[in-house]
Amino acid sequence: MKTYLAADVGGTHIRVGRYPVEGTEPISLKRITTHGEGDATDRLINLIEEMLPGDDSVAGLAVAAPGPLDPKAGIIFSSPNIPGWVNFPLRKILENRFHIPVELGNDANMATLGEWQYGAGRGHHHMIFMTISTGIGGGVIDDDRLVLGHRGLATELGHVTLIPEGPMCGCGQRGHLEALASGTAIARYVSEQLKLNYPSSLKSIQYPSAKDISLAAQNGDALAIEALARSGSYIGQALANYLHIFNPTVVVFGGGVTLSGSYLLDPLRKSLARRVMSPAYLADLQIKTGELGDDAGLLGALALVRSLHPLC
Amino acid sequence: MKTYLAADVGGTHIRVGRYPVEGTEPISLKRITTHGEGDATDRLINLIEEMLPGDDSVAGLAVAAPGPLDPKAGIIFSSPNIPGWVNFPLRKILENRFHIPVELGNDANMATLGEWQYGAGRGHHHMIFMTISTGIGGGVIDDDRLVLGHRGLATELGHVTLIPEGPMCGCGQRGHLEALASGTAIARYVSEQLKLNYPSSLKSIQYPSAKDISLAAQNGDALAIEALARSGSYIGQALANYLHIFNPTVVVFGGGVTLSGSYLLDPLRKSLARRVMSPAYLADLQIKTGELGDDAGLLGALALVRSLHPLC
Repeated sequence: MKTYLAADVGGTHIRVGRYPVEGTEPISLKRITTHGEGDATDRLINLIEEMLPGDDSVAGLAVAAPGPLDPKAGIIFSSPNIPGWVNFPLRKILENRFHIPVELGNDANMATLGEWQYGAGRGHHHMIFMTISTGIGGGVIDDDRLVLGHRGLATELGHVTLIPEGPMCGCGQRGHLEALASGTAIARYVSEQLKLNYPSSLKSIQYPSAKDISLAAQNGDALAIEALARSGSYIGQALANYLHIFNPTVVVFGGGVTLSGSYLLDPLRKSLARRVMSPAYLADLQIKTGELGDDAGLLGALALVRSLHPLC
Repeated sequence: MKTYLAADVGGTHIRVGRYPVEGTEPISLKRITTHGEGDATDRLINLIEEMLPGDDSVAGLAVAAPGPLDPKAGIIFSSPNIPGWVNFPLRKILENRFHIPVELGNDANMATLGEWQYGAGRGHHHMIFMTISTGIGGGVIDDDRLVLGHRGLATELGHVTLIPEGPMCGCGQRGHLEALASGTAIARYVSEQLKLNYPSSLKSIQYPSAKDISLAAQNGDALAIEALARSGSYIGQALANYLHIFNPTVVVFGGGVTLSGSYLLDPLRKSLARRVMSPAYLADLQIKTGELGDDAGLLGALALVRSLHPLC
């Protein structure tokens, strides 16, 4: 029986799973920390080694990796949490070592594939996935294919300008969606308002995180509710643009911030409805949260290796 | 010998050409006005009738039509200059009449296909086309395919918000690229500045058009130069977003306003370079003006019918 390997390399953990030809239930799955004894590359190689069966039954491996990367060339341009991975030919390294086909995808695109094949986007041909956590990432399925662009740098959905001279973004530009609506931006906004003596239960926490703010909102804290609404409103504004650009039938949200549920999503829908230029864009549109949680990237890698190395 | 028919229906003219299996030289080509005796549909049908040879040598027909339309369903949602074309099943009507395969594409997407197959985008796999005239339209080739979305409403590249509470757009929303940088927007800006007594050679013209402004810029008029630079700067800002979304290797500009050349394109490039988040997006990028002019849509229709009904 043939099997597939899927790996997800994150800033804190590396996971590798071995899967049968169908379904999302792993035959075996193991998780280690990304940083520890040996560098991240060695740790990944050792974990794959451990997961490989003693025979030649593995039809291929795909790796979901953080940071911009070129999936065709198999090269990671840079990775925020893994210092050595700069113009790093991870695919070649793994292929030379294991003599099996290796595919590479960035984490946001792999999460998109995962939710599309096995999660909230199942059955759709046109999908936008946005992940709202520390940063904002995304991916797009157009006509059953991932939009990648020339070197895999497409669908950076967090890096669209909403306010030309707005707050500084992690990428160095100003006023991007990520700088206005990510978990980091929500926490920054709350901190600023607390400094201005906005009354809030969050006063008791030194640096309230997006998670603290989400909890406070659920307890009725007005500042927390406002901060999430502000983020949702910006996301809705950006999403209106993305509907005009991609005309999808489903938008799937992932990432920690979406746990804020209606505190984020209601203002998002309102802002979207106000900004979209024709009701035609909303007519067949579903807006959902992801079904796969932290497994989206891993299962997306599985979807990738299965689609590129089919066994039939 | 098999041949193809391509039609381009515009607000002022209808053109139909008959073409061989290869090349862009028509066997015959005819142009009539869109409005005249009979309605636009009858005029189109009569012209096609006239262009059909007496045998069954025509392998298919494609029509480039104005306004949003669903290419899969073959339905025109609405057409700004042809009042009767509202949810109009043009494909079915033409198929029933001529008993040949009929394809439909909107004018901006057809111009994209035309420039990609036969013009400035030849040989590229990832291309953005933007047409800057009365309005701003566009199309995108990703991995050798036109991005269409669920009902063909994708890549409305003029309808991205640049200034949230900016000037009113033709679509009813505010602050869209089209409202800030189209030929109409350039003319409006100049008129406003003239009212404020900005000194300019354009004072002598009652309502200076984008073409008048382009000519004045070439004669050194400071207001005209500023108006074109302002437009170019906004387009560059939007284009930075589009590079982050599509990561193309070529951007092709069409439409009358691009005749302004460097008065528009130099500020555009400058603004783009300032706004793009990584030089990687510019590394392999060419920025060009279209090669096909007014033929782009017609030749795009030709490309469409050839690709969907190949003779080999």
